[in-house]
Amino acid sequence: MGDTPKSHPRYLSLKTRDAIVAGVEKGITSLHGLVAHGRGEALDYLLGERTHPFARRAARAAAATLLLAERPVLSVNGNAAALVAADMVRLGKAVDAPLEVNIFHTSKSRERAMRRHLLEHGADQVLMPTRKAELDYLDHNRRFVHPDGIFKADVIFVPLEDGDRCEALRKMGRDVVVVDLNPLSRTARTATVAIVDNVVRALPLLVQEAHELAKATPRRLRQLVARYDNAKVLADAEARLRRGTR
Amino acid sequence: MGDTPKSHPRYLSLKTRDAIVAGVEKGITSLHGLVAHGRGEALDYLLGERTHPFARRAARAAAATLLLAERPVLSVNGNAAALVAADMVRLGKAVDAPLEVNIFHTSKSRERAMRRHLLEHGADQVLMPTRKAELDYLDHNRRFVHPDGIFKADVIFVPLEDGDRCEALRKMGRDVVVVDLNPLSRTARTATVAIVDNVVRALPLLVQEAHELAKATPRRLRQLVARYDNAKVLADAEARLRRGTR
Repeated sequence: MGDTPKSHPRYLSLKTRDAIVAGVEKGITSLHGLVAHGRGEALDYLLGERTHPFARRAARAAAATLLLAERPVLSVNGNAAALVAADMVRLGKAVDAPLEVNIFHTSKSRERAMRRHLLEHGADQVLMPTRKAELDYLDHNRRFVHPDGIFKADVIFVPLEDGDRCEALRKMGRDVVVVDLNPLSRTARTATVAIVDNVVRALPLLVQEAHELAKATPRRLRQLVARYDNAKVLADAEARLRRGTR
Repeated sequence: MGDTPKSHPRYLSLKTRDAIVAGVEKGITSLHGLVAHGRGEALDYLLGERTHPFARRAARAAAATLLLAERPVLSVNGNAAALVAADMVRLGKAVDAPLEVNIFHTSKSRERAMRRHLLEHGADQVLMPTRKAELDYLDHNRRFVHPDGIFKADVIFVPLEDGDRCEALRKMGRDVVVVDLNPLSRTARTATVAIVDNVVRALPLLVQEAHELAKATPRRLRQLVARYDNAKVLADAEARLRRGTR
């Protein structure tokens, strides 16, 4: 992987790509996850590879939603584990939520490697999918979750796209906070709060917002949530994507 | 990989993704190639996943350029081999051009697996990179090519992005025909002809155009090439990408 020359105009994007490729080599990211990462790269490129005001508004509402939750859970997939493990752990501590491993293409060995990776990055507890608790509306093996985690959660943070699961959770009455670079996706459109940004920028921002709002009153947090308009955020993000920055 | 349900709204796109993942499992596609495929998926999605008039114009000019060439060569990378091996072979026969294996992240075993794969798909001859011939302007191991292939070619068909190589070949005075879903890329902007389309649709179209133009006079082919405006094609493609279709 080390053969990307520094003279390459897309050096930083290529280094992040190296990190996700390393995730595959460690057994935590799936091959399909690499393709999904590529989709994100293209969209991020069109957005100018920076955090826009619509993403800041969403990150603030997301932090408020997670802080107000009674049983928040942070779902982790193979891409999030490869790219932002330490920030996921920090966010879990900031909003008092456990991490739960939940991947698209089921693999016990990958689930175990992810758990190990998250523990190495400072996680106190990592919940695993079980056969004891199932979500409705999902027609394949992504339905299995932990009985004390996503199964009982009122707010689930899903840091990368999974349209089916987001839709299923919403139908079951849960609030879902997502990070998704595609403002047109089902994930973004069905989510309670969609942060349209690269996960490597969105996670540190979300941790910062959670720290800043840690001492806010519940009334103030409810106000932030009530004023948040996800449809407007997605419309702004789509306009930016279409208008372009280069 | 067989766990994508038919009910999934992006079933066809997911099946193509399965083909590229199979390419990795066969040892012909690189992990970085999977990420590149994902970038293409996102751009194709924004373009409505269909072949637009600007791509048809480019495919016609591309076929004319290849038919007029004295020494055309078709460069094949790991993604093209996984997705369109049979069509690359057909195109080679239609325009009387050899295939040459030329990959971004060097790997002898991958080069050999690609060669085998192309021969299995009907190729008569597959040129391999050697240490005997080098391109100018490339600062790493992508400079090595075959002395009777790309090294001497006047027209090189590069079916998937590689901005550095495209630029180097153009600086060396060669004509380069590319397929690239990103109309803003250096590849597309430095190419002689850029077909902005998914390679799985562009290759069959290009083969068809080559067959249709096979009996055209050189004068007619030169006319087609002279009238082609790559900058206009890219402007139309960008407008379509920005405007969107969904």
